Amino acid sequence: MDKQIALERKVLSENDRIAADVRAQLQDRGIVALNLVSSPGSGKTSLLERTLAALNDELRIGLVAGDVQTENDADRLLKAGGKMVRPIVTNGACHLDAKMIARVLPDFNLDNLDLLFIENVGNLVCPSSFDLGEDMKVVLISTTEGDDKPLKYPSMFRRSSMMIVNKLDLLGTSDFKLGRVTENARQINHDLQIFELSCRTGDGLEAWFDWVRETVAEKRGVLA
Amino acid sequence: MDKQIALERKVLSENDRIAADVRAQLQDRGIVALNLVSSPGSGKTSLLERTLAALNDELRIGLVAGDVQTENDADRLLKAGGKMVRPIVTNGACHLDAKMIARVLPDFNLDNLDLLFIENVGNLVCPSSFDLGEDMKVVLISTTEGDDKPLKYPSMFRRSSMMIVNKLDLLGTSDFKLGRVTENARQINHDLQIFELSCRTGDGLEAWFDWVRETVAEKRGVLA
Repeated sequence: MDKQIALERKVLSENDRIAADVRAQLQDRGIVALNLVSSPGSGKTSLLERTLAALNDELRIGLVAGDVQTENDADRLLKAGGKMVRPIVTNGACHLDAKMIARVLPDFNLDNLDLLFIENVGNLVCPSSFDLGEDMKVVLISTTEGDDKPLKYPSMFRRSSMMIVNKLDLLGTSDFKLGRVTENARQINHDLQIFELSCRTGDGLEAWFDWVRETVAEKRGVLA
Repeated sequence: MDKQIALERKVLSENDRIAADVRAQLQDRGIVALNLVSSPGSGKTSLLERTLAALNDELRIGLVAGDVQTENDADRLLKAGGKMVRPIVTNGACHLDAKMIARVLPDFNLDNLDLLFIENVGNLVCPSSFDLGEDMKVVLISTTEGDDKPLKYPSMFRRSSMMIVNKLDLLGTSDFKLGRVTENARQINHDLQIFELSCRTGDGLEAWFDWVRETVAEKRGVLA
């Protein structure tokens, strides 16, 4: 397996090189790029639908929707008012890589963009290893999953800067405890910023919207 | 990337060779082996807890609990009465492979086993490519995920022989429709057997238990 490990390293180092180039293009223009990662069904697309509904008139938002197969998520984002949506169908690959992002980047008018959301393939393992040139990874977890997920999939929580706990409205339908998921997540990553919300009821969404607004404004400020 | 594809093929063909050996060992003794696959949080461990509670006195059940990190699932299965439980911590790997199974198989007294459950890593993509020597893959999906998952992760649904729709009790809390998930799943795999149940309320579990009983009895019959 040494040959495999060597090849994996080579693939990752090539990925890092391309990711650095993507990052430079985005940074130059003060674009905030967020890489959304989670299990399938945690609510990445729902969060983006809600975010578009709230911020589409204020901010110039680009969206990349990655999926193993189908363009369903991209279609949902278009319906939700997304003006710049680009699907990536990985055809079996379990994660997005920087090369895929580099390939679609020219489709966006980067001079006309404040914010780029990259919705990764639903997978709590593999996408953690691939830098896409983003400012940060945002990991979603829903209250219908187990609250020990941060311990069971530590790499993803370690490499994310933010955890969003979704489906607050379903709290109480299982043994999932907010205190416990927070404790488990902070055990893996002490600096993890945490939002708790429900894309269904809207509970907690304002704080997330405010954070997005501030993060975009801050980046513009740095650049000005 | 040709080198990578060639190496992937080699890894998979080595996996198939080991899986065939595992399968032969299990078939020789008439042991039914089920490979449980799903997103993180769909309820694989909960289903096994319930199955142990119902069938532990009737059948001799072995359990392999695969996780990226922690032995939480194995601990839960032991608490649920599991007599032969073996954790596999993959240390970052996104799936179980046949070599991992071959390595733990000697820990089981195979002459004293009717049924082997293999709980795979929570991941709807990568485990689909790896034969573990099982009789069939059983894919779980919960009603809190999207009902388009079979279309978005087709390989897993194509390679599974059964789909279990879990968390029936949470039906109605989202747009998930049973008719739609069935239709989508059958579009990918016409022969997919489908169970709908709730590990929380117990609804639908009897049919699953009966199926397990019959499958074990049938295999013994063939062997006798």
